[in-house]
Amino acid sequence: MSTSRRTFLAATTAAAIFTTEAGATAVTHYPKLVHHVFFWLKNPDSKEDRDKLVAGVKTLSKIETVRDLRVGVVASTEKREVVDNSWGVSELIFFSDLAGQATYQTHPIHLEFIKNCSHLWEKVIVYDAVEV
Amino acid sequence: MSTSRRTFLAATTAAAIFTTEAGATAVTHYPKLVHHVFFWLKNPDSKEDRDKLVAGVKTLSKIETVRDLRVGVVASTEKREVVDNSWGVSELIFFSDLAGQATYQTHPIHLEFIKNCSHLWEKVIVYDAVEV
Repeated sequence: MSTSRRTFLAATTAAAIFTTEAGATAVTHYPKLVHHVFFWLKNPDSKEDRDKLVAGVKTLSKIETVRDLRVGVVASTEKREVVDNSWGVSELIFFSDLAGQATYQTHPIHLEFIKNCSHLWEKVIVYDAVEV
Repeated sequence: MSTSRRTFLAATTAAAIFTTEAGATAVTHYPKLVHHVFFWLKNPDSKEDRDKLVAGVKTLSKIETVRDLRVGVVASTEKREVVDNSWGVSELIFFSDLAGQATYQTHPIHLEFIKNCSHLWEKVIVYDAVEV
């Protein structure tokens, strides 16, 4: 077994133990910059368009400064006045820092995503938050 | 050294190795339900009000169904038309499932937070996303 394979297995096992010990999901050294994008689809009833956009967003995980990427759709939580459920697809990315986010903005993979998918959405809202 | 202490140290060490090996931050078995709340302060220029709300949001991490909580303020990313930077404080919570979020909504700690802090904000928008 190679060293890296052993290390990976050790990490996996330890993470699982850590999860059990803490009684919650293990998250370690999580990056501090949160980039949350909400897309409103031009054709909100088109599952095909939604799936295309989801697939497009997932390509962004290949950008080296993207520490974690989660693609979402509207959850079926209780309808309340404060809950905005009018969007179609969400993109939650964690960066280590502002530089990582800046690199992402002009990265060829990001530009390709915009070229291939921007016809699918009619509105975008971005929230950039830094942990305090 | 107790067993739990040894386990904790093993987990910490392995997580650090995992981070190095992957060239990115280790995140394992992350919960699938994302609850992102943005607060607009009544007094947006009051650092005191902002700090009070940040402290209030942090109390929510004690709710047993909250798997992870990140409190944010507006990041100094590039100003672009699509970026909304008009809010004051953000609350990003991960739940394992819809039931976890429902428990949170009516939890005494959440109700206490609303009682103590709702005078600080004038507007709230909530996004509930489920991973796809």
